[in-house]
Amino acid sequence: MAVYTHVEPDDLAALVGRYDIGTVLSCKGIAEGVENSNFLLETTAGRFILTLYEKRVSVADLPFFVDLLNHLADSGCPVPAMIRDRDGIAIQHISGRAACVIQFLSGISLTHPTPNQCEAAGAALGAMHRALEGYAGSRANTMGRPHWRGTADAAGNLDAVLPGLQAIVDDELAYLDRHWPTDLPAHVIHADLFPDNVLMLGDRVTGLIDFYFAATDFRAYDLVITHASWAFSSDGRDCDPALAQALMRGYAREVTLSDAETAALPILARGAALRFLLTRAHDWIHTPADALVTRKDPAPFLARLRRYSAADAADLFAAR
Amino acid sequence: MAVYTHVEPDDLAALVGRYDIGTVLSCKGIAEGVENSNFLLETTAGRFILTLYEKRVSVADLPFFVDLLNHLADSGCPVPAMIRDRDGIAIQHISGRAACVIQFLSGISLTHPTPNQCEAAGAALGAMHRALEGYAGSRANTMGRPHWRGTADAAGNLDAVLPGLQAIVDDELAYLDRHWPTDLPAHVIHADLFPDNVLMLGDRVTGLIDFYFAATDFRAYDLVITHASWAFSSDGRDCDPALAQALMRGYAREVTLSDAETAALPILARGAALRFLLTRAHDWIHTPADALVTRKDPAPFLARLRRYSAADAADLFAAR
Repeated sequence: MAVYTHVEPDDLAALVGRYDIGTVLSCKGIAEGVENSNFLLETTAGRFILTLYEKRVSVADLPFFVDLLNHLADSGCPVPAMIRDRDGIAIQHISGRAACVIQFLSGISLTHPTPNQCEAAGAALGAMHRALEGYAGSRANTMGRPHWRGTADAAGNLDAVLPGLQAIVDDELAYLDRHWPTDLPAHVIHADLFPDNVLMLGDRVTGLIDFYFAATDFRAYDLVITHASWAFSSDGRDCDPALAQALMRGYAREVTLSDAETAALPILARGAALRFLLTRAHDWIHTPADALVTRKDPAPFLARLRRYSAADAADLFAAR
Repeated sequence: MAVYTHVEPDDLAALVGRYDIGTVLSCKGIAEGVENSNFLLETTAGRFILTLYEKRVSVADLPFFVDLLNHLADSGCPVPAMIRDRDGIAIQHISGRAACVIQFLSGISLTHPTPNQCEAAGAALGAMHRALEGYAGSRANTMGRPHWRGTADAAGNLDAVLPGLQAIVDDELAYLDRHWPTDLPAHVIHADLFPDNVLMLGDRVTGLIDFYFAATDFRAYDLVITHASWAFSSDGRDCDPALAQALMRGYAREVTLSDAETAALPILARGAALRFLLTRAHDWIHTPADALVTRKDPAPFLARLRRYSAADAADLFAAR
């Protein structure tokens, strides 16, 4: 759940006045994104998202996000472009925060995607990767593999989350250190394309949103993050072959993975499962049980880690 | 900050399908109202608010609210009408909650109203009172004067909020018991028309919202609640005569108070100040300091109570 910074109506009118987007009709804080304060802003010219950046998004990274989203929007990807004011400025200040006015996209986030919807999501991810292949921008992935040991240490006693978890994580970190690939196609990736970050209407993807984890990493790692978040039962125990195959089929329509990438999918997926297991375990330990934010259960990502570690894990990535 | 009940896209599509309001384009949880889960629902036919009623609104009261809002909307008051489905049903069920689809109103809640805006708010309150004068509906005011002793007792040790507060409250309750008027014009009132429950565009009132405290009580008591929440500095120490006079002037355009009502305004205002002092003190004591919900400071309503208790308090209600 988002924390809201209050916006004074006069400040809002002044901000909107810098743009060619009419005058304010309505502005309501929305429960989207946990990193920022988001408002659904309606003007006489249409609807927009107003985002105020709270502490977890570095203001120094904002120019990267503005350029990335506008590059993707220009490439025909359904991402929310950052609107520029009359002076060409996208990054504004209001209520003591950096802020952007962002294109509004229709669509609903799914919780139980169908195979057709998984295929559409896979294709949208692939099309985005094609648009990013030659993209000059880059950003270090502070949530990438070299940082997982630090995340595990910062979490504290992992056995407090699940008995035996500390040893599992230590073993997995050592395994990934030895076997993580080093030379796969890389560019800026979304790195968090869970179903709640994809807007759909029926079987059509209308929006890829929440790029604030976007960073440079293997494109195949982006694919397995999407696989881990779209193709499993909510407890993480069962990978639904129909969902997984549809996702891979959609992606393959846009991107042909190299043999090295295909061979690396299981270990990359182990990494993806571990990354979300660790950040959820960290938040689990450091969020009071009675806080009003929902703590996300780490256990379903331990279940995925187990599934991706099985001898037949490569079968989960077949695009039939 | 509102607690959100999740709505499954399929359930939402089924709900919207009961109405003649097109198909779903978007649905976002909004941070409005602390009693309910509210969503800004966009369909091919327009925008609506979808409200899911959480535990603090009694489902048994919903037919009263539906009838009240539709009566006011039919009377030309800018309130959000409850939409009825093809079978004439306004109260639905989704995600285990009672729910209503409600008209969307443009406008922004003010934090620092001007005299012109206070006058418009006073006039909107008066026009609403005129529309309610002959209204047959009624609802017991569970936050009304007979219940304040119970609220004080349930709060616990009031001195933990502000040293000396317990004695002040005890004295005030005794005073109000002796002097509270008994025979003033009464009908259903809003009972919580703070600035955040009024939507405006410029100096025009576009919405009176959040009627979930509406109940039968003195209309002059509704007026002083509005006075207490619109005409004071945020610390409650200073009543701005320009704001107060504008509010009273706007109200007087629509409603002529009787002499008995005018004479009762100071004591009714003491009651209004005490009512919000008590509920805020209760929440202050019973909300953990580290909870993510913002606790509202009770002290500004103690300051108002003092101001309304002064010998010259009647001057605060002059409509010049």
